[in-house]
Amino acid sequence: MSRIRAAVDDPDIFLTEYVPSNGMKREINPGTVMVPCPVVLLSVDGPDRPNIITLSWAANVCSKPPTMVVGIRPERHSYNLVKNAGEYVLNIPSAEQIEGTVFAGSKSGRDFDKFSEGGFTPEPASEIKAPMIKECPINIECRTREIVPLGAHDLFIAEVVTAHIDESVLDENGRFDASKTTLFTYLPLNGQYWTLGKKLR
Amino acid sequence: MSRIRAAVDDPDIFLTEYVPSNGMKREINPGTVMVPCPVVLLSVDGPDRPNIITLSWAANVCSKPPTMVVGIRPERHSYNLVKNAGEYVLNIPSAEQIEGTVFAGSKSGRDFDKFSEGGFTPEPASEIKAPMIKECPINIECRTREIVPLGAHDLFIAEVVTAHIDESVLDENGRFDASKTTLFTYLPLNGQYWTLGKKLR
Repeated sequence: MSRIRAAVDDPDIFLTEYVPSNGMKREINPGTVMVPCPVVLLSVDGPDRPNIITLSWAANVCSKPPTMVVGIRPERHSYNLVKNAGEYVLNIPSAEQIEGTVFAGSKSGRDFDKFSEGGFTPEPASEIKAPMIKECPINIECRTREIVPLGAHDLFIAEVVTAHIDESVLDENGRFDASKTTLFTYLPLNGQYWTLGKKLR
Repeated sequence: MSRIRAAVDDPDIFLTEYVPSNGMKREINPGTVMVPCPVVLLSVDGPDRPNIITLSWAANVCSKPPTMVVGIRPERHSYNLVKNAGEYVLNIPSAEQIEGTVFAGSKSGRDFDKFSEGGFTPEPASEIKAPMIKECPINIECRTREIVPLGAHDLFIAEVVTAHIDESVLDENGRFDASKTTLFTYLPLNGQYWTLGKKLR
């Protein structure tokens, strides 16, 4: 049995024993095996210093009001920071921030200043106290609406208060141009990070 | 104001008026602007025939019990099918299924048999009645735990019952090898689908 450890908040993903199916498909243990997944750096204010946590359990879930979810383990240092603050920024990194992304996902804010040691610069948000991460091309300010305990993770349901996008990733019409940055995804099935390739459609 | 229509269940995403910020970042209307997003084909059983709906509002959210969420608009034909069935399959497409993916996201199951007309083959699931999509390399059988109304979308929180992975995307050790298929993502910020490129780490 091989366990794949990953630098995001989902240490339980692994492929174990399997039952060969009678076709070309293999049945695997139930798991959160959706791929590819987003990677977000959640920045939150704290009593001592702001903190950053790398998350892949995250999604847009409702357009009106604009609502997003993240799943966070109660044992994580950031859990209480996020719960107590009630607001946070979801920062979307580019491949330039991969090392800081892995750092922020594998170390605890109890022991490290993840802004300075992760190579991230705090930048004031517009509507909330949590700092945004300057280096990330997209920053989404969120306020918690509801917390749903699920088991190993709690689900934070949050409304988007406002959002920011770096001028450098916009085209001449002010529209997001993915070719001007290098977004990346996370594959919990094998613990790898992959860049986006090309426009399919 | 330009509205970007997309072939997934999130017709409200658009960039509109903006306030230039005093740095290199532009503040945009609050929105569900996280990128990149997964693309899943939800297959569900129905009284007349099974149906497929393309969703991007989807995530892994809890590892134990393995739990996933999807956001679905109550107006959608699939909404009542999903609600009534209480179980469904999240199928992960590869780039070979892009046309069927767009078709299943832009047409209604009221008017079309999305399996036959989308080029998809039903395949029996192990634990639930909903059919899996044979062409998709990963199939995740889910059962609804809770439905949380959020506004335009309802959040379906579901437990993973079992999962299947195509032998063709596994390496010699039975581990998922992303280079053996072409996964793709959806960018709600501009309505584009992008393939994965290369392993970053």
